[in-house]
Amino acid sequence: MSEFPEFQHLLNRTPEERDQEFQRHGRLKHLIFGSQLSIELLDRLCRSADMIRRLARDREGNADLRNLLPNRRAMLYFTQPSTRTFLSFMAACQILGITCNEVRDPKMSSEVKRESRTDSVRMFSSYFDVIIMRSQIANFAEVCAYMMNDLERTDRRSVPIVNAGAGSDEHPTQALLDMYTILRTFDFDENSLSRPSRLGSLQSDYPGLTTGAANKVYAFCGDIKRGRTVRSLATVLSQYSNVTMYFITPPHDELRVDDDLKSLLETAGVKVKEFESLEDTVDGTPILESIDCLYMTRIQREHNSDTTEAEIDSIDLSPFKLNRQRVDSMKSYAPILHPFPRDSIIGEIPTELDSDPRAMYFRQARNGMWARAALLVHLFDVNEALMEAHAKRFPGSA
Amino acid sequence: MSEFPEFQHLLNRTPEERDQEFQRHGRLKHLIFGSQLSIELLDRLCRSADMIRRLARDREGNADLRNLLPNRRAMLYFTQPSTRTFLSFMAACQILGITCNEVRDPKMSSEVKRESRTDSVRMFSSYFDVIIMRSQIANFAEVCAYMMNDLERTDRRSVPIVNAGAGSDEHPTQALLDMYTILRTFDFDENSLSRPSRLGSLQSDYPGLTTGAANKVYAFCGDIKRGRTVRSLATVLSQYSNVTMYFITPPHDELRVDDDLKSLLETAGVKVKEFESLEDTVDGTPILESIDCLYMTRIQREHNSDTTEAEIDSIDLSPFKLNRQRVDSMKSYAPILHPFPRDSIIGEIPTELDSDPRAMYFRQARNGMWARAALLVHLFDVNEALMEAHAKRFPGSA
Amino acid sequence: MSEFPEFQHLLNRTPEERDQEFQRHGRLKHLIFGSQLSIELLDRLCRSADMIRRLARDREGNADLRNLLPNRRAMLYFTQPSTRTFLSFMAACQILGITCNEVRDPKMSSEVKRESRTDSVRMFSSYFDVIIMRSQIANFAEVCAYMMNDLERTDRRSVPIVNAGAGSDEHPTQALLDMYTILRTFDFDENSLSRPSRLGSLQSDYPGLTTGAANKVYAFCGDIKRGRTVRSLATVLSQYSNVTMYFITPPHDELRVDDDLKSLLETAGVKVKEFESLEDTVDGTPILESIDCLYMTRIQREHNSDTTEAEIDSIDLSPFKLNRQRVDSMKSYAPILHPFPRDSIIGEIPTELDSDPRAMYFRQARNGMWARAALLVHLFDVNEALMEAHAKRFPGSA
Repeated sequence: MSEFPEFQHLLNRTPEERDQEFQRHGRLKHLIFGSQLSIELLDRLCRSADMIRRLARDREGNADLRNLLPNRRAMLYFTQPSTRTFLSFMAACQILGITCNEVRDPKMSSEVKRESRTDSVRMFSSYFDVIIMRSQIANFAEVCAYMMNDLERTDRRSVPIVNAGAGSDEHPTQALLDMYTILRTFDFDENSLSRPSRLGSLQSDYPGLTTGAANKVYAFCGDIKRGRTVRSLATVLSQYSNVTMYFITPPHDELRVDDDLKSLLETAGVKVKEFESLEDTVDGTPILESIDCLYMTRIQREHNSDTTEAEIDSIDLSPFKLNRQRVDSMKSYAPILHPFPRDSIIGEIPTELDSDPRAMYFRQARNGMWARAALLVHLFDVNEALMEAHAKRFPGSA
Repeated sequence: MSEFPEFQHLLNRTPEERDQEFQRHGRLKHLIFGSQLSIELLDRLCRSADMIRRLARDREGNADLRNLLPNRRAMLYFTQPSTRTFLSFMAACQILGITCNEVRDPKMSSEVKRESRTDSVRMFSSYFDVIIMRSQIANFAEVCAYMMNDLERTDRRSVPIVNAGAGSDEHPTQALLDMYTILRTFDFDENSLSRPSRLGSLQSDYPGLTTGAANKVYAFCGDIKRGRTVRSLATVLSQYSNVTMYFITPPHDELRVDDDLKSLLETAGVKVKEFESLEDTVDGTPILESIDCLYMTRIQREHNSDTTEAEIDSIDLSPFKLNRQRVDSMKSYAPILHPFPRDSIIGEIPTELDSDPRAMYFRQARNGMWARAALLVHLFDVNEALMEAHAKRFPGSA
Repeated sequence: MSEFPEFQHLLNRTPEERDQEFQRHGRLKHLIFGSQLSIELLDRLCRSADMIRRLARDREGNADLRNLLPNRRAMLYFTQPSTRTFLSFMAACQILGITCNEVRDPKMSSEVKRESRTDSVRMFSSYFDVIIMRSQIANFAEVCAYMMNDLERTDRRSVPIVNAGAGSDEHPTQALLDMYTILRTFDFDENSLSRPSRLGSLQSDYPGLTTGAANKVYAFCGDIKRGRTVRSLATVLSQYSNVTMYFITPPHDELRVDDDLKSLLETAGVKVKEFESLEDTVDGTPILESIDCLYMTRIQREHNSDTTEAEIDSIDLSPFKLNRQRVDSMKSYAPILHPFPRDSIIGEIPTELDSDPRAMYFRQARNGMWARAALLVHLFDVNEALMEAHAKRFPGSA
């Protein structure tokens, strides 16, 4: 039973039914779940992100971008602490000319005065044109989206809701930026930011290599169970054909991939394998040599429970950390991702690896800005204006 | 004796003398007191708010609005917590192209260093072009306005001061937005946002009905004594002719309308009646059937004193709450207002009433944004530019 | 040993070697130390500040200014509390069209997650185009500048770092704004904001008077040792020829000018004298009559240690406070400066002196905005665009 009894009947439906409410004519009204990110939608958003990134290179392109949504005001309602997601949404808004406003204090004055959470959000929707929210309250973003749909049905003011991370559940825009980074890398385009050069030359070393997210081996290393990031990304990746996933985790029930996710992935056709060290092998071949993409994570100590804290702290983490030698054994084009922040004390990725061409994690962070800007362009339906601005400045490109 | 001894001789004057200092040639220099809102000024501000609201409907109109004050920077100095007033001022500034800055922490670093309050505000006036302030310190906004007047007299930099709520005393911009909502509703114009349709058809049901704020019965329900909102609004309404006010409150000295306000209203010619339930009658007619406007309020439990807390908590509040049946007995055009936030636990207005056409409280909140933008247009004296922009886009309208 | 072992070898070099890293082709890449402010650079920055101030007088000039850097986003990373410096940087950015973002909470969520400080700053540099930072961590801004230089060398994204005050050490932009105020005052130009009129008429009263910062007697009064402001400004002033400095402080080792600074100044050719009261004399002449500029400071009680608190609190401060009579004995053109906030309880400058034409401290605060804007124009290399905009609107002026 959620905190929102009047919406309980809507929350009780299947995931597919719920997703359905947040789109219209193939376009998102709200982004609440990672499962809304279909292959086709990802392609569209990534194309937009590319255009935004290219336009942002110079002063004139930036002026075009700021002219897309200057009449819009955003509310960033982040009652769960976040720096990276928050700042990257701020930057994304600013790129498009959207004015930003924020409420970050979980003890808002109005809540002290016993205002309901939904009244607070409806107030925000009176003043602002999109609500980007991160909250610990289960289902809160989803409920706000239903409220907006109700208002729209009765011809009252309604605005898009964006889920910017909810408790340990969902973080759809992180999955979006991870996919943008993966798709850009596996584009192997010479105009791509991805350091590895074109497909042709790579294929002489790696004969079976193809472009795109399909036909790849993805490895996820570290704290899998408690990372909403991995859950969201793996689910999205499971839509692509011929995908293999390796989960490399300490042998502890709090960290290992959980059975729910595993069976969901397998049902979708993903080959899933579990390992207990980055040095493990498959059929005699070291896994680091056989993977196309390595997604590192931080051990999320803040989620340790009192009962498991000592156990988890006693685990030897060296099998789950990168070093120069391990990276050197990876394929030359295989990106190393990390949702960041990384743990500077444990050091799952030591700083001396930052200049390796496979180290994509800082670029991944910056991609968050472009991908989130692309999402806002989509939600406000100004993709045509973006394409026109892009075509005008880059007449040759697609 | 205030905290500002050097300004005490100015604070000791009559309200009229003090009001006089804040205007010049019929225009406000600062907005400190509700009593500065004359009928004529309200008319001007509401006309501006209408123009702003209409222009804000589309992209081009928004661009015109943002072009009114792009060279201005505002300081929102809110040391008393507030979400609604704060955000609505932010939005109002942004609509007009004003850049916003804020100081909200009551323990500013400079105060730790024993800077005087007036030095802090003068510092703000060095960097910013208007100071919108909410503070618990009695007379602080007024004193800042005197300081600015002094600076102006000696040809130094001076900026407008806006009182955005001071302790339990004054909240002039709330009175402004309440009046804007009332005047728009009682305009009975078909272009108005007010749901009830035109005056003609209404008069067949309600023969004596006239447009405007005069000749009406206003009911205020709930926590009257501790609500600066009601005090400010009732005072402003008392300027209109043939006004009746009903105060419907629990029979407790902390909540009931106080004698000061009552005698002030009666002196101004208002007929005042007190009741102890929304179900009470006047000459056999239920009051809910006879009123033209119902202003609901929240019981402000945060102002309970230790001695009265138990008493007030034991009051049966059901006579002061709305429900479907009570609303159904009201006149079809009579707006229900509430300064918000409403109390979701007590439930003086249950959410199931939100879709009733008389429920004006969310529109009232949004009106706060338009009314505050109109105030800024007035203070910065760009009303002509606003009228020109409006006339260009809506050539037919007044 | 600093918190940044990997940068220790760089921190161990001489001040000159370190300064060298932060400029290129005579232009600043980062502003970290006051010693980077050469006479020639100060002249350029002050000319820019003058142009910005003049353009900001009207709507069109403001539009030109906002058009200088609208494609830039700033991060104000202020983990050490500050109001004045923070707000004045905000305003400076806004004048130039730069969008502002801020992180002020020292307990950022990412730090809770054990992100290293340098990772946090590199994250900021992913989203924003300049990082303006104030921190208590020794050498932090300097280390960030080295990190950015490393990134630049390997062709990765790099942004300018501005030190907005670090612990009790350095505050180079305060020295910049102090110098801007001093140079404007000693310009004796009739178009200058300095109230004293032109040099010619002044020379009849003060025959030896020249324009510029050279050939002057500067007095610093109050808490010298603990004021990074005085340290930075005195060092910068020591570059000018024929400069005398008087330090007027209580006879306590925590407050008196320290031997390091004194010998640094004397090596640079400054004549240094110490006094214990504003009423002291030199060769029979009261010092207040002989000085060209008086820099007042606040006793920084927050830096009192437990052992010295009682001692310092027992000092009679009356010899270090201004009053009407003392100011009347000063030269008519001699500016009174104060970095602010002033202490309203001790009252080193009573408010009744604020309207004296020598009282430059509020103008000095406002100059901080112009000087910081000039610095940003310099760092982003848009000085030419500024000069063009200025020449277009003020064709006659230099």
